[in-house]
Amino acid sequence: MEQKAYLRPVHYYETDQMAIVHHSNYIRWFEEARLDLMEQIGISYADMEEKGILIPVVDVSCKYLVSAKYGDTVSILPVVSSYNGVKMCFDYQIKNAETEQLLATGSSCHCFLNKQRMPISLRRQDPQLHECFASLIKEE
Amino acid sequence: MEQKAYLRPVHYYETDQMAIVHHSNYIRWFEEARLDLMEQIGISYADMEEKGILIPVVDVSCKYLVSAKYGDTVSILPVVSSYNGVKMCFDYQIKNAETEQLLATGSSCHCFLNKQRMPISLRRQDPQLHECFASLIKEE
Amino acid sequence: MEQKAYLRPVHYYETDQMAIVHHSNYIRWFEEARLDLMEQIGISYADMEEKGILIPVVDVSCKYLVSAKYGDTVSILPVVSSYNGVKMCFDYQIKNAETEQLLATGSSCHCFLNKQRMPISLRRQDPQLHECFASLIKEE
Amino acid sequence: MEQKAYLRPVHYYETDQMAIVHHSNYIRWFEEARLDLMEQIGISYADMEEKGILIPVVDVSCKYLVSAKYGDTVSILPVVSSYNGVKMCFDYQIKNAETEQLLATGSSCHCFLNKQRMPISLRRQDPQLHECFASLIKEE
Repeated sequence: MEQKAYLRPVHYYETDQMAIVHHSNYIRWFEEARLDLMEQIGISYADMEEKGILIPVVDVSCKYLVSAKYGDTVSILPVVSSYNGVKMCFDYQIKNAETEQLLATGSSCHCFLNKQRMPISLRRQDPQLHECFASLIKEE
Repeated sequence: MEQKAYLRPVHYYETDQMAIVHHSNYIRWFEEARLDLMEQIGISYADMEEKGILIPVVDVSCKYLVSAKYGDTVSILPVVSSYNGVKMCFDYQIKNAETEQLLATGSSCHCFLNKQRMPISLRRQDPQLHECFASLIKEE
Repeated sequence: MEQKAYLRPVHYYETDQMAIVHHSNYIRWFEEARLDLMEQIGISYADMEEKGILIPVVDVSCKYLVSAKYGDTVSILPVVSSYNGVKMCFDYQIKNAETEQLLATGSSCHCFLNKQRMPISLRRQDPQLHECFASLIKEE
Repeated sequence: MEQKAYLRPVHYYETDQMAIVHHSNYIRWFEEARLDLMEQIGISYADMEEKGILIPVVDVSCKYLVSAKYGDTVSILPVVSSYNGVKMCFDYQIKNAETEQLLATGSSCHCFLNKQRMPISLRRQDPQLHECFASLIKEE
């Protein structure tokens, strides 16, 4: 599968009084992009939650290189950096969609929980989903 | 009971590139203030939701008079303008806590739902809570 | 001009613990939709602000009919309900993009300010922009 | 100086449909806490920006251990982990204020910019401010 970057315009309410996007919003963009990536491979996270599988965030980081501004469209590329059935990690690149300038990089790791909020192994719990996520690991 | 206004500082991330608080945050402040009012009369909304009573927003409005800015502390006074057991409405005044200048006024109306998201009459469902809310109506 | 509704998916971070979109986000969606409408007629609000014209919100209101949920795509149609050169008002309809079900209606009014934050008449300040906005008033 | 932790209740709108605080809000809490820390030593960031000194975020990270929930009050302790006049870093601990349970840890680094958005050395630009920040470094 050819993975497409996630494109979205900066919203006015995402700016702060430095006239740049507030740094907390990049963390939200990471989420938008990884859920979009799931959609691209046919996984609806809305459906997953209905089935009782939650994917909370275990840790997150972001490096800010160049500020995104209102008027920009950003392009966010999430890449699965590791996945072993119980933990999944993503790396992200945020670029200005027009100029291709790199604005920020980041990462996030996630575990899998059932409805009782207990950690589960996706490999055992849902082998089909497990295969989908495993297929996302970037081949060298 | 002497109702106290709800005080809170403006947060930096609540500003936008006009260097004022983004207007959507006033709607969030209304929520903070009405939940604080409930706390003041001994009602924990967190507990209410656990018991299975939800109070969603039916409508909301806000008039913006003077912009709140980072560095300000705002004072929000919610007043129950009407309550009949199935619907509750609030009026709000947001002031600069230091200068007492009126920054915004607003209103919100709410209904009561059970866990199945069906409208309920609080008078029948929870007479004690009903009395609490009824007691909040501003006497003339 | 054929005005197109503004389409966007619900973001996960826009939900609250009622498992619906938090009501404050509809106010942000109104903003997204009216700035998109400006783009549709060739006006970039980013450029407008650079030129020194600000369009702050004077008042806003929203009626919530059916809750938007994560997994939904919403369609927001802003309509200029009045415009006289110094004040501009919009009406909004938010629908579920798939089912066409009406989720919410609302309105907002705006004035025009210069860089010194003084009210201006767009008719005198920028006749070309004035004509653009005037052209948006829904003909009967 | 005895540094006080920054206390604040969880706001309802900060929750998501997992019924926990959305992870992006912890990044905002870090900001609230470090600006509060500045206030504690007599520095108003609002005044700093007026004077033309900006402190943008260069990077940020957060590890999520236990979820904060609506109804909780959180206590956030920011500690200056390094400062050299051109870069300042903070470590954070977020605890449940009542139970003292550790909910999250994190960090952020910042540089100093002038109004033209050029990096500056605070040591040269504002020696008094420099001394204030230098005094915050945790002594071993």
